[in-house]
Amino acid sequence: MKVVEPFPLSDAARSFYVQRPVLVTGGLGFIGSNLVHALAKIGARVTVLDNLNPKYGGNQFNLNGVEGQVELINADQGEEKVLQNVVGRFDSIFNMVGQVSHIDSMEDPYADLYTNVRVHIALLEACRKVGHKPKVVFAGTRGQYGRANGALKRVNESAPIAPVDVNGVNKHAGEMYHFLYSHAYGLRSCSLRLTNTYGPRHTMKTSRQGVIAWFVRQALDGQEVQLFGGGDQLRDCNHVADVASALLLAMFNPAADGEVFNLGSEEPMSLLRIVERIVAVAEKGSVKHIPYPEHLKAIEIGDYAGDYSKIQKILGWLPSISLDTGLAEMVDYYRRNRDHYWRA
Amino acid sequence: MKVVEPFPLSDAARSFYVQRPVLVTGGLGFIGSNLVHALAKIGARVTVLDNLNPKYGGNQFNLNGVEGQVELINADQGEEKVLQNVVGRFDSIFNMVGQVSHIDSMEDPYADLYTNVRVHIALLEACRKVGHKPKVVFAGTRGQYGRANGALKRVNESAPIAPVDVNGVNKHAGEMYHFLYSHAYGLRSCSLRLTNTYGPRHTMKTSRQGVIAWFVRQALDGQEVQLFGGGDQLRDCNHVADVASALLLAMFNPAADGEVFNLGSEEPMSLLRIVERIVAVAEKGSVKHIPYPEHLKAIEIGDYAGDYSKIQKILGWLPSISLDTGLAEMVDYYRRNRDHYWRA
Repeated sequence: MKVVEPFPLSDAARSFYVQRPVLVTGGLGFIGSNLVHALAKIGARVTVLDNLNPKYGGNQFNLNGVEGQVELINADQGEEKVLQNVVGRFDSIFNMVGQVSHIDSMEDPYADLYTNVRVHIALLEACRKVGHKPKVVFAGTRGQYGRANGALKRVNESAPIAPVDVNGVNKHAGEMYHFLYSHAYGLRSCSLRLTNTYGPRHTMKTSRQGVIAWFVRQALDGQEVQLFGGGDQLRDCNHVADVASALLLAMFNPAADGEVFNLGSEEPMSLLRIVERIVAVAEKGSVKHIPYPEHLKAIEIGDYAGDYSKIQKILGWLPSISLDTGLAEMVDYYRRNRDHYWRA
Repeated sequence: MKVVEPFPLSDAARSFYVQRPVLVTGGLGFIGSNLVHALAKIGARVTVLDNLNPKYGGNQFNLNGVEGQVELINADQGEEKVLQNVVGRFDSIFNMVGQVSHIDSMEDPYADLYTNVRVHIALLEACRKVGHKPKVVFAGTRGQYGRANGALKRVNESAPIAPVDVNGVNKHAGEMYHFLYSHAYGLRSCSLRLTNTYGPRHTMKTSRQGVIAWFVRQALDGQEVQLFGGGDQLRDCNHVADVASALLLAMFNPAADGEVFNLGSEEPMSLLRIVERIVAVAEKGSVKHIPYPEHLKAIEIGDYAGDYSKIQKILGWLPSISLDTGLAEMVDYYRRNRDHYWRA
């Protein structure tokens, strides 16, 4: 079993979490569940609120190994009444619920609006109505910037907000709600705008959520990995364990309150090169180029690389896991646990 | 009967509208109905889609005098199926539906989300699903900027988007949706970010929508006009007939496509001075200062004055109606038609 070494937390940060009651919404999903594993390892008292929607990556197996340490509340995250009975117990809430598929958001904007906006209103309204003022860490997305780059230039937090898909609009609205409730009602919040996050516990049921996971599945099945239009778009990839470290630091450090932070990776890479790495690590699969589908061109963002100097400066975070190391662990995870994610 | 002379349209702009089928959503509301009057006067073939929600200012009397020239579709603007049967007939759609109360938006963010986001998705989705690509003019708000100013400096369109109330978040999301659908599906759209709009046909049922209208009602009832906390916040006021001219120019001129424009007035004025003008024009009422309510402080935006040089430069629009002239017409309108708006 391969393991990765994510960005290490300071002793102070670790102590902050020991025995601390922490709520993770969407904790059965990809990023949420990896965060739960990290929290459980440090010794936090974790509660997960999740509606176990398989379409959005919810998977009971994602808590395999930590079930005994985690309280699970199976409920719709948009049910404000449920949330009103829950939020008061937690000063630290990781709000990880979300729908991430760009294509799905274009096909059904109403569903995306529900999951990426209305659900967050429910959490924030629940806090307001019970008069509770926790810190809420939100998972934003590079999609809020849209097609930020012409040439490759790292995108920082003051880049224009110009989403090119429904998902980006709704994620930005969701983020604005967090800061609004902070301002109006005295919660604290911050947002990490994530880029391509990869690693174990990602759903493998669809090609629409997380392109790296889908590449890994195709490779592990010994198939041709289909790459649209040459695959020369640059992406920066963060291993989910590094992302979990960033989230933990953002919650711990009061300097994060009211701030947005981009994540990013040291070396942005073309999708083609990422696929080649996956095929090499998996020792299976091959690359197949296919034409870029017409209906997806409008929501393609081109090159993206996040400028992560702000989070580095303020929270001291850096991406620690190289793509090869991270992919090796990811491939190993799915080799061992494939049956819990897809049928070959 | 007093009349105002709004910013005049060129002959080319007027010709554009003669016999043109035009859809106005929310056309029974304040701004929508004034726009309908302006369109009817030019000779456009106007269709109004409105659910006649009195809470949001819908009032059948607002079309008094032009009923015969207007087709009225009484339906929920969020009913995509209805919209799918309607939008194909119109290359020009003024999307004037909206909820404008800041306080209501804070008390019930779900309702505001419905009216200011979901309803717009329904219109845009209807266009997408029937493959129709009209031009859609959207009514944005200065509330998208939030508390933009420290000292008085005119706010231009590149000021940060930082809403301090739910309404501002949702209005911004609604605007982003318009530009997203333009980009992804080939509609054309633009947004006018309105400031304090006043004039006839505004709802008078509540203090929560449009402070100037409420001041006018109190004055006409011979009451004390209650002013929070000194009333020294600066506001710029646009008469709704000038706003209608701006909307008509924005639809007519292709240079507006894909753009946002602030409106504004020549001389920003304190709320106190505005109330004093209302009392003087109405020759009734008086000013009463009361303490600023605690629960409203968080959503108070301080001074605001829009920089309207962009719309002046690109569309040639200017505010034409002075506050005194505009208030005189407004007061005259409500004197004559009070029973259709409130019981004294």
